[in-house]
Formats: sequence, C-alpha cells, structure tokens
Amino acid sequence: MSDLVLYTYFRSSSSQRVRIALHAKKLKFESQFIHLLNDGGQQHAPEYKTVNPSGQVPTLVHQGKALAQSMAIIQYLDIAFPQIKLFPEDAFLHSKTIEFCEIINSNMQPFHNLKLIQHLEKELSLTASQKQKWFKDWMNPGFIALEKIARKFSGTFCFGDSISAADCFLAPQITAAERFEVDLSPFPRIKKISESYPNVEAFKLSHPFVQPDCPPELRARE
Amino acid sequence: MSDLVLYTYFRSSSSQRVRIALHAKKLKFESQFIHLLNDGGQQHAPEYKTVNPSGQVPTLVHQGKALAQSMAIIQYLDIAFPQIKLFPEDAFLHSKTIEFCEIINSNMQPFHNLKLIQHLEKELSLTASQKQKWFKDWMNPGFIALEKIARKFSGTFCFGDSISAADCFLAPQITAAERFEVDLSPFPRIKKISESYPNVEAFKLSHPFVQPDCPPELRARE
Repeated sequence: MSDLVLYTYFRSSSSQRVRIALHAKKLKFESQFIHLLNDGGQQHAPEYKTVNPSGQVPTLVHQGKALAQSMAIIQYLDIAFPQIKLFPEDAFLHSKTIEFCEIINSNMQPFHNLKLIQHLEKELSLTASQKQKWFKDWMNPGFIALEKIARKFSGTFCFGDSISAADCFLAPQITAAERFEVDLSPFPRIKKISESYPNVEAFKLSHPFVQPDCPPELRARE
Repeated sequence: MSDLVLYTYFRSSSSQRVRIALHAKKLKFESQFIHLLNDGGQQHAPEYKTVNPSGQVPTLVHQGKALAQSMAIIQYLDIAFPQIKLFPEDAFLHSKTIEFCEIINSNMQPFHNLKLIQHLEKELSLTASQKQKWFKDWMNPGFIALEKIARKFSGTFCFGDSISAADCFLAPQITAAERFEVDLSPFPRIKKISESYPNVEAFKLSHPFVQPDCPPELRARE
C-alpha cells in the first residue's frame, strides 16, 4: 500500500480538488475508487465508513491516518509536503486564499452536490427548470464574489502566477458550472483564469473524464 | 476605529463562531452590526458589499484589510495572534480540527442558513413539516460524523481540554439544532461537550441572545 492513498470518485468536485493539489505538488498516490451511485452508493458501505464516518469522498490516508474534507486535506498536504506550496506565506494572503476556497466550498458546491440533487429530485420533486434556477441562484452570487477577489489578486492563476489552493477549488467549480449550464461571461477574470487550466499538467491529470473510474461513454477521447 | 472590527449579526452562526474565537483569544474588537432582515437585508447594501462582496456576515477588518468566511478569519486570527492557539500544533490534529469545522461549515450550516430558509419558503413553498424534515436530513449525518471524531479526540472540549476552532464551530451548531428541534440524544459525546459551553466566558459573551443587536424579546434575562 502506498504512503498516500486517495479515496476518490471521478465526478466528485471535492475529489477533483484534492487530485489537483496532489498533482500540483508532484506527489505520488494510490487511488481507491468509491462509486457514489453503484451498489446503492459505495460511500455508504460500513467498511468505507470506518475510513470516513461522513460517508463522503475524498478521504486521504497518509501513514495510516485518515483525513476527510478537501479543505482539511489540502491544508494538511501543504504542511506535510511543503516543497511546493499551495498557500501564500503572507498571513493575510494565506487567509484570503482560504476565503476564496470557502466561497466555493460552503456557499456554492453544497447546493449542487450529488446528495443535494438527489434530495431535490426525490424529496421535493423539482422540475428540470426549477433545478436549473436553483443552480443559478446559488452559483451566481458566489461567482460575483470570486470575480471581485480575482480582480484584485490574480495573475495567470487566482493568486498570482503560480497554482494555489484557490485554483484547486475553482477548476472543479468551472466544470460544475459548465455541466449545469451557468453562464460565465459575467465573470471575465474568472473565465480567463479557468481557460489556462486545460494546458496545465496538474489540471489535465485531475479532470473527471480522464480518471480510471470514469465510464467509457464520458471518457475524454485520446 | 479599533484595530480589529467585526461586522456581525447576533443570530448568524458564522458570526458567532468568530465572536467565540475573538473572546477565547482575549482580543479586543469593535462590532459593526449588520441586520440581515432590516432594510431588505443590510448585508445587500452597496457600501457593505465594498467590505464583503458576498454580502454576508461575518467580515473581519484588521489594519484596514477585510477578510470574509469564518474559516478564513479564525485561521487568520491564529496566525496573527498566536498567544492563545485555536488549532493544535501537530499537523494531523491541526487538519483533523479543520475537518471537524468543515463538516459543520460545508455539510450542515449551508442547509439552514437564512438565505436557504428564505429560498425554501419563497421559491419552493415548503410546509413547516417539510422544512423540519429538511433540517433533520441535513443535520443528522453531520452530527453522526462529529460524534465519531469527538469519541476519539475530545476531552472537556472537542480536541482535548482546551478550546479549539472545533468548539467555535460546534457551539453555534448546537444553538441551531435546538432552534430547529433536532434531537441531540443520539450524540452523547457531542451533547456532553456542548453542556460545558454555557459555563465558559468565551461562549457566554458570544451567545446570540446577549449581543447588543439582539432584539429585546429574544434577549437573555440578566
């Protein structure tokens, strides 16, 4: 077993964040695939819940110790493997990076994750157009705030010209915005930053559609 | 103007988290009250949005620089004012504390914050019993995970015997659970930890019902 094991699902945006962080830091890791739909959701299996009591992906296991929550994992990686840093050294910029990540993590992503979508469909019987409005209503205010931060601090990437944790969070959020057809044109700086991602190795290797657990019909063509 | 200014609302659980952190660290701060319901929501006012583009509370201003998002603010305070620490020194425990906070911050609180409740009522016309089910469906899995972590790491407080960021996040979540009538008896360790809070100065001073902006009808009796 590798020193670093990531429990992951190809389409989970929180898993994608951690994959980007691991690749950006050039760390080798072993993947364990947890299919969120098969077998009634493999994340609910009792043996997985001993690793992650929330029954969520991702989980990172390092030297036998398990950590959940992408924010916790990425900050852990930055302390444990500081050779390539994903948070700025300056205390204020460090925290501003966390602020950027949290706008995505707590104000945007919770409102379109798989559990929430299933809830909207099964419990509340939302129509397709109600769902569409829901996604836009929650994503737009987040992107407005991200755009304002990016205008102040961005270079090629969200904070200056090197990849930070903010980019690990933004890239999957862009994927989600495209999936749910949220128009990004009102957020030109965010859009421009995101257009650089497909050319960068860490983002390419982490994309949902190139993961080994991505089904063939969605897999990116070689 | 004070060196530390907190934009806050008495009932905002994210504001309460930061109030606890500031009091636990024995820091003096000035409060600016943003009423989330009056004037159509003072958080939406253009002058406040120059401080916090998300139009949310809390915002901390330190030496003229504004930070939003309680996770970012509390981590900033721990770097800028390290005399009393809210995160353990050990890298794994530090990140485990973030994991605990994030279960509340991204898996629980987003599903009962004011904006979400307004959305459920106005856009989706949920009945009282549907809302009650919604709150329970989102809070219970979170408490299950918190209970498992607490069983492993807690003492008097969530991580050992001194206040950590995890307690700053847990205390307002307990207040919310009580408000939305979520039964805490299946989570005995969490319940026991939370029973110690009312006796501790930092929690007493931060409670919604003793804030200057709390309306008289809700104010705690002296």
